[in-house]
Amino acid sequence: MNHFGDRLTERISALANPTVVGLDPRLPQIPQFILDEVIDEFGETKEAAAEAIIRFNQGIIDAIADIVPAVKLQIAFYECFGSQGMRAYEETTTYAHSKGLIVIGDVKRNDIGSTAKAYAEGHIGTVNLFDERVPGIDSDAITVTPYLGSDGITPFTEVCRDNGKGIFVLVRTSNPSADEIQSQPLGDHLMDEHVAGLVEGWGRDLIGDSGFSSVGAVVGATYPEEARSLRHLMPNQIFLVPGYGAQGGSAEDVKPCFYENGTGAIVNSSRDIIFAFEKDDESGESYAEAAREAAMAMKEDLGKLF
Amino acid sequence: MNHFGDRLTERISALANPTVVGLDPRLPQIPQFILDEVIDEFGETKEAAAEAIIRFNQGIIDAIADIVPAVKLQIAFYECFGSQGMRAYEETTTYAHSKGLIVIGDVKRNDIGSTAKAYAEGHIGTVNLFDERVPGIDSDAITVTPYLGSDGITPFTEVCRDNGKGIFVLVRTSNPSADEIQSQPLGDHLMDEHVAGLVEGWGRDLIGDSGFSSVGAVVGATYPEEARSLRHLMPNQIFLVPGYGAQGGSAEDVKPCFYENGTGAIVNSSRDIIFAFEKDDESGESYAEAAREAAMAMKEDLGKLF
Repeated sequence: MNHFGDRLTERISALANPTVVGLDPRLPQIPQFILDEVIDEFGETKEAAAEAIIRFNQGIIDAIADIVPAVKLQIAFYECFGSQGMRAYEETTTYAHSKGLIVIGDVKRNDIGSTAKAYAEGHIGTVNLFDERVPGIDSDAITVTPYLGSDGITPFTEVCRDNGKGIFVLVRTSNPSADEIQSQPLGDHLMDEHVAGLVEGWGRDLIGDSGFSSVGAVVGATYPEEARSLRHLMPNQIFLVPGYGAQGGSAEDVKPCFYENGTGAIVNSSRDIIFAFEKDDESGESYAEAAREAAMAMKEDLGKLF
Repeated sequence: MNHFGDRLTERISALANPTVVGLDPRLPQIPQFILDEVIDEFGETKEAAAEAIIRFNQGIIDAIADIVPAVKLQIAFYECFGSQGMRAYEETTTYAHSKGLIVIGDVKRNDIGSTAKAYAEGHIGTVNLFDERVPGIDSDAITVTPYLGSDGITPFTEVCRDNGKGIFVLVRTSNPSADEIQSQPLGDHLMDEHVAGLVEGWGRDLIGDSGFSSVGAVVGATYPEEARSLRHLMPNQIFLVPGYGAQGGSAEDVKPCFYENGTGAIVNSSRDIIFAFEKDDESGESYAEAAREAAMAMKEDLGKLF
């Protein structure tokens, strides 16, 4: 099934679980026994940091791959270690794929024309390597930022179409100051509603059999009222929903992002799952089991909605 | 001088040249003799692509370092080759610094809270590596996108303050569809003017002796009328101006970005300089000399304004 919107919808339905686990591997929070291992092998280097991230992520992936449809990699926590961090990002993506997970790169990229195309090819397409096309990082989808308008989006949607991949466009983020731009009034509607209209248009040619487009939208859990309006304005978009859990959003808060049959959205949780062990296991030896339990609890919490 | 706005202003003035050369090394356009060399040594691999980029950039840097204050690296053309590409990005940054150039990372990053902080630390600050602080990529400044509001900017400005670095916030981009978001009317002003007001505020605590802030703004050359209004709204911002040359902007078009004494802006040119050889040297053997000549011509063209 070479259509991102269909693939994600099918996988959510197969597992009856509309959640995505955020792999945001903040180095200081990785269990000490992993840090000790990698320092022993590689010294206190960026290579060791990359190895710690890879091993930590593999443990999480092994623990959740049969109950969760997708993982989301926040690239900032990889990229901060430069080329070594990018290696950890690539290897985590490959490993997650090998376990059947859909991989969303949370990269929030944005640029125009041939530059946007280079991002798209590198993350979700193929790159021109001495006149051969070879795969890039090969995420299934990435997040993108709409500030540049259509010129900044169509290079991504073209690569999506050619490769069965997807994008999630930032529409309404979950942070308090999102208001400063996204809630500015344009006549009788808000900026985020205006962007929602653009996103609906950008995704129209990429709607699959499921009724959902491969062009989705990021809509934060912390503004349920606006989510209701945005759900209406973007009927064919899958919502990628940050802000549940640590950021304050509850199951009730994310409900307006979904259709009544439970389709149309996927909810992210990062630190509440991957660092769940911190509550009662200082050593972190049981971090993978703790992550699985937290993921099960989240599935159950969201399951009550439908 | 540990203040980015002051350092950039001083360097522009010392060279009497408000231009920045864009190092956007599109692999298929790199001269064949460089591609042959790296394929010979590394095969047709991403490692070879990274090497080609590094060598090509070094030639450009050597040819322009004494006449141009800064280079701007468009990270998309590096990142598309994954971890190898990021190595080329890091090594080019280090090499440009060794030749006295100011390095601007054109990364257009955007996120909130600790995630934005991870980007900032990785690009313009120091990262926590097993409880030691070590330098990240160490660009002098990066570009950022404002769609998330203050929560997406203050983590960057804090890292700027601590490390003498800078950011350029996208306000008005040079592409045609920028209108779809940036020119939307908010009552009696436009979205980009609203963002300009935010940028002015974000930069207020980082104004140096030169009168310029380490928080600058990206303002495209292709909308001179709007540039005039934005110059007024952001009196302390250095404008990073794309769109000159290949994208259609002339010296007259960029003039409103400057003050009458020639300060307040730096104009980017990428392919017109680094691929200047394509006009009359198919082999590319003289690409570095051609780049120097094109950079000299641009300096002269802009010099006529003041």
